[in-house]
Amino acid sequence: MGNTDFECSHRVAVPPPRSFLLSIKSSLKETFFPDDPFRQFKDQPLARKLILGLQYFMPILEWAPRYTFEYFKADVVAGITIASLAVPQGISYANLASLPPIIGLYSSFVPPLIYAMLGSSRDLAIGTVAVPSLLISSMLGEVVNPHQNTKLYVQLVVTATFFAGVFQASLGFLRLGFIVDFLSHATIVGFMGGAATVVCLQQLKGILGLVHFTHGTDLVSVMKSILGQTHKWRWESGVLGCCFLFFLILTRYFSKRRPTFFWINAMAPLISVILGSILVYFSHAEKHGVEVIGHLKKGLNPPSLSELAFGSQYLSTAIKTGLITGLIALAEGIAVGRSFAMFKNYHIDGNKEMIAFGMMNIAGSCTSCYLTSGPFSRTAVNFNAGCKTAVSNIVMATAVMITLLFLTPLFHYTPLVVLSSIIISAMLGLIDYEAAIHLWKVDKFDFVICIGSYFGVVFGSVEIGLVIAIVISLLRVLLFVARPRTCVLGNIPNSINYRSVDQYPIAQSVPGILILQIEAPIYFANSNYLRERILRWINEEEDKLKSSLEIGLQYVVLDMSAVCSIDTSGISMLEEVKKILDRKGLKLVLANPGSEVMKKLDRSKFIEAIGDEWIYLTVAEAVGACNFMLHSCKTNPKTDDSEEADNNV
Amino acid sequence: MGNTDFECSHRVAVPPPRSFLLSIKSSLKETFFPDDPFRQFKDQPLARKLILGLQYFMPILEWAPRYTFEYFKADVVAGITIASLAVPQGISYANLASLPPIIGLYSSFVPPLIYAMLGSSRDLAIGTVAVPSLLISSMLGEVVNPHQNTKLYVQLVVTATFFAGVFQASLGFLRLGFIVDFLSHATIVGFMGGAATVVCLQQLKGILGLVHFTHGTDLVSVMKSILGQTHKWRWESGVLGCCFLFFLILTRYFSKRRPTFFWINAMAPLISVILGSILVYFSHAEKHGVEVIGHLKKGLNPPSLSELAFGSQYLSTAIKTGLITGLIALAEGIAVGRSFAMFKNYHIDGNKEMIAFGMMNIAGSCTSCYLTSGPFSRTAVNFNAGCKTAVSNIVMATAVMITLLFLTPLFHYTPLVVLSSIIISAMLGLIDYEAAIHLWKVDKFDFVICIGSYFGVVFGSVEIGLVIAIVISLLRVLLFVARPRTCVLGNIPNSINYRSVDQYPIAQSVPGILILQIEAPIYFANSNYLRERILRWINEEEDKLKSSLEIGLQYVVLDMSAVCSIDTSGISMLEEVKKILDRKGLKLVLANPGSEVMKKLDRSKFIEAIGDEWIYLTVAEAVGACNFMLHSCKTNPKTDDSEEADNNV
Repeated sequence: MGNTDFECSHRVAVPPPRSFLLSIKSSLKETFFPDDPFRQFKDQPLARKLILGLQYFMPILEWAPRYTFEYFKADVVAGITIASLAVPQGISYANLASLPPIIGLYSSFVPPLIYAMLGSSRDLAIGTVAVPSLLISSMLGEVVNPHQNTKLYVQLVVTATFFAGVFQASLGFLRLGFIVDFLSHATIVGFMGGAATVVCLQQLKGILGLVHFTHGTDLVSVMKSILGQTHKWRWESGVLGCCFLFFLILTRYFSKRRPTFFWINAMAPLISVILGSILVYFSHAEKHGVEVIGHLKKGLNPPSLSELAFGSQYLSTAIKTGLITGLIALAEGIAVGRSFAMFKNYHIDGNKEMIAFGMMNIAGSCTSCYLTSGPFSRTAVNFNAGCKTAVSNIVMATAVMITLLFLTPLFHYTPLVVLSSIIISAMLGLIDYEAAIHLWKVDKFDFVICIGSYFGVVFGSVEIGLVIAIVISLLRVLLFVARPRTCVLGNIPNSINYRSVDQYPIAQSVPGILILQIEAPIYFANSNYLRERILRWINEEEDKLKSSLEIGLQYVVLDMSAVCSIDTSGISMLEEVKKILDRKGLKLVLANPGSEVMKKLDRSKFIEAIGDEWIYLTVAEAVGACNFMLHSCKTNPKTDDSEEADNNV
Repeated sequence: MGNTDFECSHRVAVPPPRSFLLSIKSSLKETFFPDDPFRQFKDQPLARKLILGLQYFMPILEWAPRYTFEYFKADVVAGITIASLAVPQGISYANLASLPPIIGLYSSFVPPLIYAMLGSSRDLAIGTVAVPSLLISSMLGEVVNPHQNTKLYVQLVVTATFFAGVFQASLGFLRLGFIVDFLSHATIVGFMGGAATVVCLQQLKGILGLVHFTHGTDLVSVMKSILGQTHKWRWESGVLGCCFLFFLILTRYFSKRRPTFFWINAMAPLISVILGSILVYFSHAEKHGVEVIGHLKKGLNPPSLSELAFGSQYLSTAIKTGLITGLIALAEGIAVGRSFAMFKNYHIDGNKEMIAFGMMNIAGSCTSCYLTSGPFSRTAVNFNAGCKTAVSNIVMATAVMITLLFLTPLFHYTPLVVLSSIIISAMLGLIDYEAAIHLWKVDKFDFVICIGSYFGVVFGSVEIGLVIAIVISLLRVLLFVARPRTCVLGNIPNSINYRSVDQYPIAQSVPGILILQIEAPIYFANSNYLRERILRWINEEEDKLKSSLEIGLQYVVLDMSAVCSIDTSGISMLEEVKKILDRKGLKLVLANPGSEVMKKLDRSKFIEAIGDEWIYLTVAEAVGACNFMLHSCKTNPKTDDSEEADNNV
C-alpha cells in the first residue's frame, strides 16, 4: 500500500479473546455487584466467613464491640433531641396519612429498633415521611373512606406497608438497587417541591378549621374547596395556626444563622405542641372551633399480623400503593443516608440499606406501624446533635416507648392546627427553589424534568408527576442515543491533537481529509441517523470545496474514540457508509476504535473489508498516512477502488 | 502551581457561548430535520420554491420530465412480471387476512398508482404483505368472526387501514420517522422469522383441507388443533399441496443458482395457479375435498368511504390494529426500499416515504383495499426484472385492472391449497437463520433480542414477540447508560498515547498516577454506579501498591474523551469524587472534556472548584504535569489539600 512510513509499532489491537461464559460472568458482575461485596470473603477460613457474613447482614455486630461510653453519651443527647421532634412529627404525619395519631407514635418505636441492627448508616434517624404519608392517604383514600371505615383503611395501610417492605427487601436481595438511580436529582427536586406544595395546601384545612374538604390533592380542587366555603373559615383556628407557623419559621431561621443553636429548631415542634395544648386546656378553645387530638390509647404497639388484609378486594390497590410509596421512601432514605455518610467520609451500601428498610417495614407492618424511612429533617437534627451510631435511634425509640406507656394523655388537648403548622414549616424547607434555579443555569433539560414533575404533582397528582419526570428522563437518555452528536475535527496548531472545530475555533481542517467524530455508541436506534448525518457532512464538505480551488475531498477519517459500543445494525451502517464512499471514490479510515468495537468489527469481517491498514491508533497517524498517500503517490483512490465498488453491486 | 512546563498554549476550551434559543433551534433541527430538507430551497425565487415544494411532495413531477422510452420498455417488462406475482399473492394474502379474495386484487390496483406519484423509491413494488395480513386476522378476528359476520369484519379492516394510513402519514409530517429505527435489525430478523413460522403453521389448515381450525396463532394451539383432528385430514388436498410446494421451492432454488432465470421464480406462482385450476376443472377435485376460491365478482374497486366504521363499538380495536400493522408495514416497506436504493446508489427520504405510504393506505381504505406496503419478494422480482422507475407499479396496476375487469372468472376453480403452497414458499424465504447465526457470532445481545422476538411470536402472539424485542432492545440501551464501562489506561511504549490496558496488554501504567477512562455520558442513571466504580478502582490500585514498594498513589486522571454529555447528577458525582479524593490526599485531574461537558462544568462552577490548571487537553499532558509535580516538587499533595478538605466538612 505504500504507507509504510506510518506502519509504526502501534496497531489498533483486537482485544485478546475471552470465553463467552467468562464475559457473561464479568458483565453480570458489573451489573449486579459493582461494589464487589465478596472481596472481603476471599481467602478467609470458614468460621471467619460466617462471622463476616453475619456482620454483612447485621452491621451492628460489626460496630457494637467497638462501642464506647463516649459514643453512648453523644448518642443519648442526639436520641433525646430527635425524640422531641419524633413525637409531634409522628402525630402530624399520621394525620396527613388520614390515620389515627397513635399509629404515628407506634411507627417511631419498632422500625428504629430494627434499623439500628440492620442499617449501615450512622446518622439516619428513622421515622415516618411526609410525601409517602400523603400518597397513602390519596391512593388508599380513593377506595376506602378513612373516616367512615377506619378499621378497613388501617388494615389496607399496614398491608401496603408490608408490600412496601417486601418490595424494598427484594430489591436489595436481587441487587436491583440501581432502579432507585433512575429517580434523578432533578426529578427528586421537582417531585419533593411539588409534594411539599400539595401537603401545605392540604394543611389549609387544619389552619382554617374546615370540616369538609376535597379528596383531590391537586391545586385546582383544593383551591375550589377552600374558596367555596369561605363562610366556614374559623378565625380562632387561623390565628393560632399563623402564630405557631411564625414561631416555627422564626426558630428555623435562627438556627440556620447559628448552627450551634440547632436544638432550638429541633425542640420548636415539641414546644409548640406543649404551648398549644396548655393554651387550649386553659382557654377551652376546643369548644370554639379549634379541633384537638382527643383521646390517645395508652400502651405499646399492638400486634397487627392478623390485620394484614390479603383477602381484601382492595388488595391490588394496597400492593400498588406499597410499591410506589416503598420506592419513594427508599429513594429519600438512601439519598439522605448517602449525603450524611459523605460528610463523615464513610460508605453506605445501597443494596444493604434496601434490605434494612425492607425488614424494618415488614416488622413495622406486623406491629401496627405504617411506612417509615429516613426523613431529611430528623436526620439533619440527629447529625447536628452529634450522633455517633445508630444507638441514637434506640434512644429515640425508648423515649417514644415511655411516651406511649405514660404520656399519651398529655396530648389530649393538643390542637390539630399546631400539627398543621409543624407540617407546613417542615414542608417549606423541601421546596428547593434554589436547586431549580441551579438546574436552569446548568442544564435546561434537567430543569424541564424538574418543572415537569413539579407541575405534574401540583396540577395532576403525585403519581402523574412521577410518571412525567421518569418519562422525560428516559426520553432524554433515548434521545441521546438516537441523536448522537457528530462533529468535524481539526488540527490544533503546533500539536498532533485533533479536536472539534466548534469547541476549539483555532483548530484547522486538513485539505483533502474530512475528520469526523461520533460521540455515542452506534446502535440500532441511531444507525440510520448517523448514516444520513455522515453523508450530509461529506456533501457539505464537497460543496464547500467545489467553490474553492483547494484539493478535492479524498479521505474520510472517522474518529471512533467515543464510540464505546456497537451492535449489528451499527456494523451494517458502517458497511453501507463504506460502500457509498467507495462509489464516490472516497476512502474510509477509522481512528482509535475501542476494544468492544474492534472485537465486533473483527467478528463481522468488517476489518477485512476495510483493510486493517486503514485503522489507526490515533487521528494524527490516520491523517499522516492519508497525507502521505495524497502527496507522494498522487494516485487517485478512485482507480483502485472502483473495481471493488462494482463487485459490491 | 509550578507546573509551568506544561502550560502549553493548548488549554481545554469552554466553547463560545450560544444563546439559549439558538441552541434549542439547532438541537430541534438535528432531532427532526437531520437530512436538512430545506437546503435546496435556500436562495431560490418564489416560483422555483413552489415547484421544488411540489416536487418534494410528489417526486413523480421531478423524474417524469426526464422519462424516456428506454425506461418505459424496461418498466413494462418489470411491471408485467410483478403483476404475474401480484395476482396469486394478492388472493393468498387476502385469504391469510380472512378477507374475501377479491379484496387482495383490489389492493394491488389503487395503492400502487398512488405510490407511483408520491413515492421516492424506484424499485419498490407495492402490494399486500404477509405479516400485517396475519396480524389483521388475528387481532380483528378476536372481536368479529370473519366468516360469520363478513360485512362487519371487512368494515373494520378498511377502518384499520384508514387509521394505519393516517398514522403513517402523520409520522411523516411530524418528522417522527426515527420511531421506525427503534425496530432494530435483530428485532426484525427474529420477528419476521417468527411471523413466517406462524404463517406457515396457519397454512397447514389449507394443505390438510381442514374446515375447523383454531383462532390462536401460537404453536401450541395450532399443533393441538391439527393433531386433534387427524381423522379429518384430506389426502387429496395434502398431495396437491405438497406437489405445488415442491415445484415452487424447486423454482426458487433454481433461480437462486442462476440469477438470470429470476423470471422462473417470478412466474412460478402464476403457473401454479393456472395448473392447479386446470387440474381441478378437469378432475372435479372440488367435490373430493379440495376447496376452491369460487365466484369472484367482476369489476373495479367499489368505493368504501361509507364502510369506514367510525361509530362501531370495535373502533378502538380497529385503531389499535391500524397502528400496529401500520408501523410494521412501514418498517418493512422502508427497510426494503432503503436496501434496494443502496444497490442503485440513490437516496430515500424516510419521512417522505411515510407520507407516501400513509396517503396510499388512506386512498386504499376509501376504495375497498386493505393495508399495503412494499413486500420484499415482489420488490426483489421488480428489481431483478430491471425496473427503472415507479412506472412498473403503474403497469402492474393496469394488468391487475384488466384482470379485475375481464379475468376474474378464470380463478373460480383455483384450489385454496395452491394458495397455501404459494404462501408457505414465500414465507420460507423470510426465516433467515443465517442472519441469526451471524448475530450470535457478532453480538450475543442482538441474538437474544432476535430469539426473544422469534419465540415471543411463535409461542405467544405477534404482539408479544414485538413487545419482547422492543423491551429487550430498550433495556440494552438503558443498561449501556446505567452500567458504562470504565477502564484503566496505560502508556503505549514509545508513544505519547494512553490506551486501555485490557485492549493493549503492552500498555504500561505510570507510577503514582491512576488513569481512568469513562466510556459513556455521565447521567443520573449511572452517576451512583460511576462513583462506586471509580472509588473501587482507586482502592484496588492502592491495595496493589501497598504490597509493592513503589511510589504511592497521588494522582487520579479521568480521561473524559468518551464522555459526550453530563447532567446535573453527573456533576454532583464529580464533586463528590473530588471531595473524597481530597480527603484521601489524592488529586483529581481531568483530561480532554468535550464541549458539552466543559460548558456544564463551567456553569456549575466545578472548573473553579477543581482549578482550571488541572484540566488538560490530552492524557499525555495531564500525566506530564503530574509527573513533573511528583518528581521535581516532591511536595505531598496531602499538605496543600487537607485544609480544603476540612473546609468541605
